[in-house]
Amino acid sequence: MQSLARGLAVIAAFDADNPQMTLSEVARRTGLSRATARRFLLTLEHLGYVRSDGREFALTPQVMRLGFAYLSSQSLPDVAQPHLTELSRQLQESTSVAVLDGDDITYVARQATRRIMTVAIRVGTRFPAYATSMGRVLLADFDEPALQAYLERVPLVSITSGTLTDPAQLRAELGRIRDQGYAVVDQELELGLRSIAAPIRDGAGRVVAAVNVSTGVLTPHGQSVEQLLEPLLETAAKIEGDLRAQGR
Amino acid sequence: MQSLARGLAVIAAFDADNPQMTLSEVARRTGLSRATARRFLLTLEHLGYVRSDGREFALTPQVMRLGFAYLSSQSLPDVAQPHLTELSRQLQESTSVAVLDGDDITYVARQATRRIMTVAIRVGTRFPAYATSMGRVLLADFDEPALQAYLERVPLVSITSGTLTDPAQLRAELGRIRDQGYAVVDQELELGLRSIAAPIRDGAGRVVAAVNVSTGVLTPHGQSVEQLLEPLLETAAKIEGDLRAQGR
Repeated sequence: MQSLARGLAVIAAFDADNPQMTLSEVARRTGLSRATARRFLLTLEHLGYVRSDGREFALTPQVMRLGFAYLSSQSLPDVAQPHLTELSRQLQESTSVAVLDGDDITYVARQATRRIMTVAIRVGTRFPAYATSMGRVLLADFDEPALQAYLERVPLVSITSGTLTDPAQLRAELGRIRDQGYAVVDQELELGLRSIAAPIRDGAGRVVAAVNVSTGVLTPHGQSVEQLLEPLLETAAKIEGDLRAQGR
Repeated sequence: MQSLARGLAVIAAFDADNPQMTLSEVARRTGLSRATARRFLLTLEHLGYVRSDGREFALTPQVMRLGFAYLSSQSLPDVAQPHLTELSRQLQESTSVAVLDGDDITYVARQATRRIMTVAIRVGTRFPAYATSMGRVLLADFDEPALQAYLERVPLVSITSGTLTDPAQLRAELGRIRDQGYAVVDQELELGLRSIAAPIRDGAGRVVAAVNVSTGVLTPHGQSVEQLLEPLLETAAKIEGDLRAQGR
């Protein structure tokens, strides 16, 4: 069973910074020996997940079958997409839905606006939960032991000069988010970017996802939190309603 | 190495029709014994790719790390997306970019329009190449031995009453597509749906992807092929230009 874990690690080693790798590079990034890495690459090539020009290896589109097995098994992305499209049209801002994957959020639906300055985010993009509005909405629903474990496990790294890195301050902020029902993150993930997020709850009241709208603080029509909040909360309610109608 | 192949098959067994499965269902869909399927599910659960409520199993968002390893390692989706958004705005129709994965096309970028009647297609969706406009643009670039092998391997199944299922007719159509530089598929994949596709070529002139626009034949503003063609070919040229500027 170790070979399954290692094979998955080899696939996950390819990314935007390493789209094509030599055997040595794959071995280095996975911590496998060259001989072991070679066996996995050849097996994955035989299975159709990897291609090679003899010197370098790269993933094939077949790998998408794996990731999209998750997306296509979930109703949330399909349920959310038309509501995001409508919200983006209404506000003229990019909107997204994300869920927790471990200590990160990962985007499962997104509607970008046409802008010169866009943020390179798409379905599958990941960010640390603590520095994002959607992540904080999800963290705010943690019970005390889970939150304590999160804070002990995850280093709160400064991403911009504004990132909240004091666990006590983050804990207080999560309390405010729980009380007010939404989160605002102002330039803590990227300078110039402000984001506001609301929770999406299942029938039992647990926060299972978050929806957000992001806006540039310096764009001419950068909108205030007040202007964005009501449409955002309405969108969250519509997504929740559709999910419950499907019995999810 | 067999366990890597089997583990990947277990992940791929989950889809929209089977988002949650019991042990018996996973065993049936993968052809594994119950005992073997159980070992794989528990290993995948331990690795964080699968969760279970004791009776049923489902994928976790972590699976997306695998599929998106491919997407994030490719420049095509990011390069294409703003051009698709612009083309969809201009034509008020859904637009897509796809590549070949084996004998299927798979969508790597998509811009849907807001419509009551939408087609349930998103990044990762797959269709048989022969019945789609993008697939035919990709098949039209096959050399003779590759095309012959494709036609011997792939049964041309009737999907609508209009689907081309005669290999000789498909071969003739691919010749026309090669000559004219675009493909039109009229209700061969779904009744009411018409699609037109153009090739995206790499620096060596090989067709590496296709871009399309799809339109309803019965919608009030259903547009003619002539109206769609010029903007589509311009978009293909822009995507090719951007890809080459990146040296891909």
